[in-house]
Amino acid sequence: MTTIKKIAELANVSTATVSKIINGKDQYISEATRQKVLEIVEREGYIPNGVAKSLKMRRTKTIGIILPDVMNLFFSELARGAEDAAEKEGYSVILCNTDNKELKEEKYLNILHEKMVDGIIMTAAEGSMNKSVKISKTPMVLVDRDIELDKPVGRITVNNEEGAFMATKFLIEKGCKNIGFISSQKKNKPSAERLKGYRRALKENGLEVDEKKIFLQNFTIASGYEGVMALLERNKVDGIFCGNDLIAIGAIQALKENNLKVPKDVKVIGFDDISMSQFMDPPLTTIKQPIYQLGEEAVKMLVAIIGKKDIDMHKVLRTELIERGSC
Amino acid sequence: MTTIKKIAELANVSTATVSKIINGKDQYISEATRQKVLEIVEREGYIPNGVAKSLKMRRTKTIGIILPDVMNLFFSELARGAEDAAEKEGYSVILCNTDNKELKEEKYLNILHEKMVDGIIMTAAEGSMNKSVKISKTPMVLVDRDIELDKPVGRITVNNEEGAFMATKFLIEKGCKNIGFISSQKKNKPSAERLKGYRRALKENGLEVDEKKIFLQNFTIASGYEGVMALLERNKVDGIFCGNDLIAIGAIQALKENNLKVPKDVKVIGFDDISMSQFMDPPLTTIKQPIYQLGEEAVKMLVAIIGKKDIDMHKVLRTELIERGSC
Repeated sequence: MTTIKKIAELANVSTATVSKIINGKDQYISEATRQKVLEIVEREGYIPNGVAKSLKMRRTKTIGIILPDVMNLFFSELARGAEDAAEKEGYSVILCNTDNKELKEEKYLNILHEKMVDGIIMTAAEGSMNKSVKISKTPMVLVDRDIELDKPVGRITVNNEEGAFMATKFLIEKGCKNIGFISSQKKNKPSAERLKGYRRALKENGLEVDEKKIFLQNFTIASGYEGVMALLERNKVDGIFCGNDLIAIGAIQALKENNLKVPKDVKVIGFDDISMSQFMDPPLTTIKQPIYQLGEEAVKMLVAIIGKKDIDMHKVLRTELIERGSC
Repeated sequence: MTTIKKIAELANVSTATVSKIINGKDQYISEATRQKVLEIVEREGYIPNGVAKSLKMRRTKTIGIILPDVMNLFFSELARGAEDAAEKEGYSVILCNTDNKELKEEKYLNILHEKMVDGIIMTAAEGSMNKSVKISKTPMVLVDRDIELDKPVGRITVNNEEGAFMATKFLIEKGCKNIGFISSQKKNKPSAERLKGYRRALKENGLEVDEKKIFLQNFTIASGYEGVMALLERNKVDGIFCGNDLIAIGAIQALKENNLKVPKDVKVIGFDDISMSQFMDPPLTTIKQPIYQLGEEAVKMLVAIIGKKDIDMHKVLRTELIERGSC
């Protein structure tokens, strides 16, 4: 491999001079010397330190993060937690958005493999049980969505079922008798777990589970809006547990359009505590996930796996109820 | 460089077998063969196609995106636009958050240079006029913030001064006589340009520019909140032009806490049209920037520069007024 030393010898200058020119800090170097050195760099195919080092160590100090959509506030916070932790550990982060599409997920897994990333953090596409995941040898940590896989991977999740139980119980304590549930589909594992918690809270408090009060679509504002429209058509509800805060935002909008006051007529509770939830009107009562920390912990676990440390491969973080104005 | 062919020869198997094992698609291959091939791969230091290709071509098919904070909805949308466009062009994106700190910006520029990225998209830290930017030879496109640099770089901006003029004029047309301006500091160039547009609209409409009605701090919700508190202490305002939507969100919150109704008592207009603005109460009237498109166009321009195409190095996108409920 062409080194700075070799280029310096060929150009008959010092290694310091070559280094300055390569790094562009060449304001005090004559144009003739600069041209000569750059020609030799070009001819000999010099490779900068970072790449040379990673070839030698077989470490690129790069990790990939695969998530549905960085424009979703949940994932932008998660990505930020991951990038901050990665920077502290000396890693760079390649960002990949799948829009929950398995084909895009598979494409990105292949690209990251080709780029020799040292590890991958992934929130799998809904319902994904991706073959590439099974076969990739790259260390991996799943975050948020705990899908079933053959190979050993790290997992960082929250206690979704418990959080959902807490949310539903809170609505019951606030006097709600007809509680709806709007969330993503069951193939999304956190959504399925939150549905379980909702059912359990109703049953344990002597309330009937009415399938007509359950609307499962996507973790989006639009689904919250459509969910309320659908629920109102077939039921009376006095409380809604929303599977995430985006759904709650859409739900509140639809309730307002139907002249229903939140929290007077209908109480609404969300899940996640994304950064915008406190600025809604009314400010959203919600189950807080430690989103930033999920990203941070995912990187820490991944770096431990890359370093072949003996660690617990599944970490469950806790949720907590944040009471604001919507219940 | 060790090739699949060489490994196949050493292991006395076909290249197809080696390829299957390297890519993990080895469910029909005997464990003995698998072990033998992997040992040779390890010993010979085989490098996957992606990395081998990038060394040969001196192209990594990777670009870096440096921005203040991906948790800020403006930048998450910009990053998403960039990543989508990059994926279409066959590039991966390394994400870097600077928190507007020049030191972090400089660190990331060096890391991206070490990693041999093919190009960099950057929203510079506020007030940054970074030496590393001047000297880096890597193709670069500045987006959103148009800082002064010695080297030729691409630039994608919007017509900030015109957008701010439009916003302020709209408040005047709605009957406002005492219009405040809350924004980031002047060292942030878009903020300085929006201040110019605000001043020009007041002057052209026979209104006085009152420095006591101008509050410059940061492009954050907190600054919007503090800005209103400060303005109310020293003035009567009936309209506020906010330098971005986050500021408008904080401003509306503070107005509500002071028992002022939006838009009845005070009209508020923002800038950006981030995805949450339509869900505020009242829904925010704002000057829309084509944020996603800024990211897309930045990648397209960067790819053209990398490909040494002859293009216009400065593209200005247009803003437009979105009328909702806050004026």
